[in-house]
Amino acid sequence: MTSDSRDQAPSPTTSPSSDFRRQGHALVDWIADYFDHVESFPVLARVKPGEIAAALPDHAPEEPEPFEAVMADFERILVPGLTHWNHPGFLAYFPITGSAPGALAEFLSAALNQQAMLWRTSPAATELESVALGWLRRLIGLPDAFEGVIYDTASVGTLHALTAAREATAADVRAKGWLARTDVPGARVYCSDQAHSSVDKAMITMGLGLDSLCKIPTDERFRMRVDLLADAIERDRRAGLLPLAVVATVGTTSTTSVDPVPDIAAVCEQEHVWLHVDAAYGGAAAMLPSHAGVLAGADRADSVIVNPHKWLFTPFDLSAFYSRRMDVIRSAFALTPDYLRTQEAGDVRNLMDTGIQLGRRFRSLKLWMILRWFGARTMRARIAEHIRLAQLVASWIDAHKDFERLAPVPLSVVCFRWNPAQGGLSDAELDAANAELMNLVNSTGEIYVSHTNLRGRLSLRVAIGHLDTAERHVRRAWDLLTLHAAALR
Amino acid sequence: MTSDSRDQAPSPTTSPSSDFRRQGHALVDWIADYFDHVESFPVLARVKPGEIAAALPDHAPEEPEPFEAVMADFERILVPGLTHWNHPGFLAYFPITGSAPGALAEFLSAALNQQAMLWRTSPAATELESVALGWLRRLIGLPDAFEGVIYDTASVGTLHALTAAREATAADVRAKGWLARTDVPGARVYCSDQAHSSVDKAMITMGLGLDSLCKIPTDERFRMRVDLLADAIERDRRAGLLPLAVVATVGTTSTTSVDPVPDIAAVCEQEHVWLHVDAAYGGAAAMLPSHAGVLAGADRADSVIVNPHKWLFTPFDLSAFYSRRMDVIRSAFALTPDYLRTQEAGDVRNLMDTGIQLGRRFRSLKLWMILRWFGARTMRARIAEHIRLAQLVASWIDAHKDFERLAPVPLSVVCFRWNPAQGGLSDAELDAANAELMNLVNSTGEIYVSHTNLRGRLSLRVAIGHLDTAERHVRRAWDLLTLHAAALR
Repeated sequence: MTSDSRDQAPSPTTSPSSDFRRQGHALVDWIADYFDHVESFPVLARVKPGEIAAALPDHAPEEPEPFEAVMADFERILVPGLTHWNHPGFLAYFPITGSAPGALAEFLSAALNQQAMLWRTSPAATELESVALGWLRRLIGLPDAFEGVIYDTASVGTLHALTAAREATAADVRAKGWLARTDVPGARVYCSDQAHSSVDKAMITMGLGLDSLCKIPTDERFRMRVDLLADAIERDRRAGLLPLAVVATVGTTSTTSVDPVPDIAAVCEQEHVWLHVDAAYGGAAAMLPSHAGVLAGADRADSVIVNPHKWLFTPFDLSAFYSRRMDVIRSAFALTPDYLRTQEAGDVRNLMDTGIQLGRRFRSLKLWMILRWFGARTMRARIAEHIRLAQLVASWIDAHKDFERLAPVPLSVVCFRWNPAQGGLSDAELDAANAELMNLVNSTGEIYVSHTNLRGRLSLRVAIGHLDTAERHVRRAWDLLTLHAAALR
Repeated sequence: MTSDSRDQAPSPTTSPSSDFRRQGHALVDWIADYFDHVESFPVLARVKPGEIAAALPDHAPEEPEPFEAVMADFERILVPGLTHWNHPGFLAYFPITGSAPGALAEFLSAALNQQAMLWRTSPAATELESVALGWLRRLIGLPDAFEGVIYDTASVGTLHALTAAREATAADVRAKGWLARTDVPGARVYCSDQAHSSVDKAMITMGLGLDSLCKIPTDERFRMRVDLLADAIERDRRAGLLPLAVVATVGTTSTTSVDPVPDIAAVCEQEHVWLHVDAAYGGAAAMLPSHAGVLAGADRADSVIVNPHKWLFTPFDLSAFYSRRMDVIRSAFALTPDYLRTQEAGDVRNLMDTGIQLGRRFRSLKLWMILRWFGARTMRARIAEHIRLAQLVASWIDAHKDFERLAPVPLSVVCFRWNPAQGGLSDAELDAANAELMNLVNSTGEIYVSHTNLRGRLSLRVAIGHLDTAERHVRRAWDLLTLHAAALR
């Protein structure tokens, strides 16, 4: 083999750019067309399980293939298996947006392939991360005392928050672990019964165990009962258990309820317990003067998560983690093997010190480009519009005799069910009918709504968050729901 | 605010594609030019700490800005702060490549914005992940019994492996955690003294504690001493401690030494201890018939990691995690909240069940496109060439009276130091001189080499792994090293 063996392939390297240039331009046109015509696709994929895999060969090709052939297979085999998260009729879960500036930034980021484990391995990615997170922090009104770091997901952020809480409570845990402790029969973490499953997964990962997660009941608006939180902590202290942290949620996954963070913060301050605020979805609303209150009390938290990849038009993944006590995160995680020691140590922030992952992508590039592309005013306007549309849907539900709303609508998600005025259906029958209604409207391909379970009842969920979701989309969703509901009778 | 407030911005949505199309084409040309001219940049950034951040405003703009202005600032402010990982003179750490097909795939992935937490939320991403990981698995010779999943990084993969090992050893740990256990005074994980710091970070995260990580000494070739591993396990069993897992490394970070996995597997089988093989870097070499032996014994492991984002020309991040016991990973992590229950449950693989992160990016798209773009033969040829170049560098070092090699070169990394033949320098003086030599050659901007510490001596490291690194780059590196070494005298 010679050193120019790479020349045998059509375009095996990054350097000979003629092929790349041609293919890149073709891809820009494909993506532009996709953005233009995304509404021509069914939102929810219609393939059967196993269909995609069966259409693909078992082995990688031995010889290079033209990019055109790869794109042709992509279109023929993979596109039918896409659920179009970038479709404005996507009203399920929490809608997200692969925005134009976000896609451009990810393209550039992949080409630069920065790996910002150390400051010196990417000063630009390291410092832009601080700057872009500072911009976002100011937009949502968190104080300067909060330092930020980007993780991939809120699941990983919550895991770091709870690890820091443990570090803050038991300084020897990094070296000694938990198992050897005989002074404490158990530790406790608290969240509401509406908190995200990532809290449970953090408990598993950390070896604290699911039984050590105390799920505090919620009030009639699905908000944590702070009186019951205080009771639980007091009871656990009496039992000799060690309260580590409280996770408060700003925008729960089912109903977007907002926990009473100021009251929770008061309990945490009194009890010296780490307060983590999971505002992964709801935090974005704090950009609006009308909704700044959703983050009230978060300034007293130890850590706060807001996900630009949820309601801030940033392609997945980018979760912003803020903490007033990043030194504790560093105490827990900083480890510098010999091969990563640098002469700048002490003068710079090395992102590897703020967590589990050594490698760090240049994610800040997309946040920076998106904030500049849209400007704060446009982003606020879109979020406000989403909230307005959710209120509109809620008003239609409230005015319809055969539908009932199952939760308040503090942000941009509406929970409701079909429940015909003439009555006579059991909750089990209503659950089955609503599941059928969901499948009927989803099978139209025009919209995609999801469901949850609220106090034992199946609830449909209309969630508004995609950049391009406009009034016509939610009107159409409502038309489809009422049309298919009428056919249920 | 009206529903068309978005029209006030130049291109605030994903839909109006005229701006996106124009900007996308401009970006393709920028990236193509970058690929063509990357060698015109200094590899290692020359900015001072804080310089980038100081050049950027404190606040996000209120109004939208043209993408051209953003790109202008990117070029003016950020490009000087890039360390060019995509430069073929990047010979530090483990070089990586933001290849043309990888960048194109990430662009497409960001535009599609798939979030494959559930099969139904992206059948294409879910099934392509299995298919592309199957392709890679066959290329590196792992048996069919290994199921794959993509994580962001090997750090996260190792954390999952050790969590699974714990789950396999103590079935009630998911619910009960570790703290409440009184039957076991402590648990133990084993790795060599050359293993990656991510093992330490997993110990911290899991609450096992760094003291529970037993670092087994290595032989003169930096490979785990299996006799000492067996001794340690036996000693720990006698002390009532619970051996959970052994982490063997195929391609350690300092010297790319390869632990004797077949012998380690025999110990693990006898002791019923989980064997995790960290082949993040070295696993790629198993694609070559001449180097298939690097993964010998890995077929007997419980889990294996190979990072396409290291030596397989895939933009960061994409770590392939394989396990013969993915059911244990699922036992540890599967949690289905109400809002994520689907009718396909049981018939499909939902990626959220295989780990901590709920959200999953469409990473398989780049792996699939890269394998097809290059074909297996080209990828093997590049890896073989990198190994040949490393041997060449080693031969130059071995032939030079003033340099000494400090470790064997099993793969594509060479560890060595300047140590003049006339002698008379202490190890401390040699360390200082070699650090100076490293800074001198790095300050040329033509190459970037890093260092490590081997048996207490500072070692320079030349690592070859970028797709475009050719003989001329390593020849130039050697010329610069000898040139500047001569000036040290």
